[in-house]
Amino acid sequence: MESDVRMEILPARFGVALRLAAGQSVDIVNIHGTQAVDTWAFNDADMNEFLSLEHTRSRLSRVIPQVGDGLYTTRRRVILSMTADTSPGIHDTLLCACSPELYRELGCDPTHRSCEGNLHEALGKIGLTAFCTPAPLNLFMNVSVGANSEVIRDVPKAKPGDLVTLRAEIDAIVVLSACPQDVTPINGADCTPRDIGYLIV
Amino acid sequence: MESDVRMEILPARFGVALRLAAGQSVDIVNIHGTQAVDTWAFNDADMNEFLSLEHTRSRLSRVIPQVGDGLYTTRRRVILSMTADTSPGIHDTLLCACSPELYRELGCDPTHRSCEGNLHEALGKIGLTAFCTPAPLNLFMNVSVGANSEVIRDVPKAKPGDLVTLRAEIDAIVVLSACPQDVTPINGADCTPRDIGYLIV
Repeated sequence: MESDVRMEILPARFGVALRLAAGQSVDIVNIHGTQAVDTWAFNDADMNEFLSLEHTRSRLSRVIPQVGDGLYTTRRRVILSMTADTSPGIHDTLLCACSPELYRELGCDPTHRSCEGNLHEALGKIGLTAFCTPAPLNLFMNVSVGANSEVIRDVPKAKPGDLVTLRAEIDAIVVLSACPQDVTPINGADCTPRDIGYLIV
Repeated sequence: MESDVRMEILPARFGVALRLAAGQSVDIVNIHGTQAVDTWAFNDADMNEFLSLEHTRSRLSRVIPQVGDGLYTTRRRVILSMTADTSPGIHDTLLCACSPELYRELGCDPTHRSCEGNLHEALGKIGLTAFCTPAPLNLFMNVSVGANSEVIRDVPKAKPGDLVTLRAEIDAIVVLSACPQDVTPINGADCTPRDIGYLIV
């Protein structure tokens, strides 16, 4: 199958920065069905404009984007559209990327890999710099809001092979991080980060 | 009453940047009970570290902070604590500051004042620059999440004279904006921005 041939593997615990021209899409494939993928997008022409979840929630009047929705930047332009989602549609826009400080709280070694570290490492590999760590779109991450405004974290509900497709609406840098969280069960009950597949179409 | 003597007025539609030493507090007084107040905090020693709602939601496991809670920075340190809240405790951490682009969407004149503009104007008046517009803590703004993850906006439930007290836990710059929104009823059913009171103690 052609798409199998072209699918790239993002190894568990690592990140990658992808350059998408307007109109190109990336399929993000949850090979094992348990892996959360922190996702960022930047305007390729200006790294100071990036995917903003607070603007996206405002524009959509919904916490979780769905197929057909645009994802909005800090300047309220559509940078990506969610054009397909074969998963149950549960994604997180509320929680920060894991970071060295978060792993310190959890008692981990200071060298523990993190989504924040992956963002900056991946951008650095293509010669780019982000001036902050924007809030990520956490694909496949199972987070909900309870009746008393509590944030409820649960194991992913995605099935092996589920995918989300994001289409660039402007020339964009998309960064994916296969979340290295292995202390809490956000990447599955066995707390084991796993590879993610992706292909640009 | 001594506190009345010292209370400053933040005029409707404007912002102010306050320098708080660690241990100082600011009372934010909703004089009319209908006014949302966009609030930011920056580390006085490093403007690149600021109040992060995604880290705060992660650390508290709650969407809305309550009395006794710390508010966390991008580096996961407590920058402010909420030490008092005489309002019904409904505040928003989900929505962006209003911005020139948002008012353009609403058909307003491009010169319409905005919370984003107020943030940068207020910082500029004390010689500081923020390198982005962080997501604001929207005090007294009545936003909730519905069963289908919809964002529900409603008129404020605060009563005239309700106040929130925020204590600086590190030397901090706190910026307040009396939200200029006068198209939607987020500042009350009559869509009229009003003055806010504040005092540093």
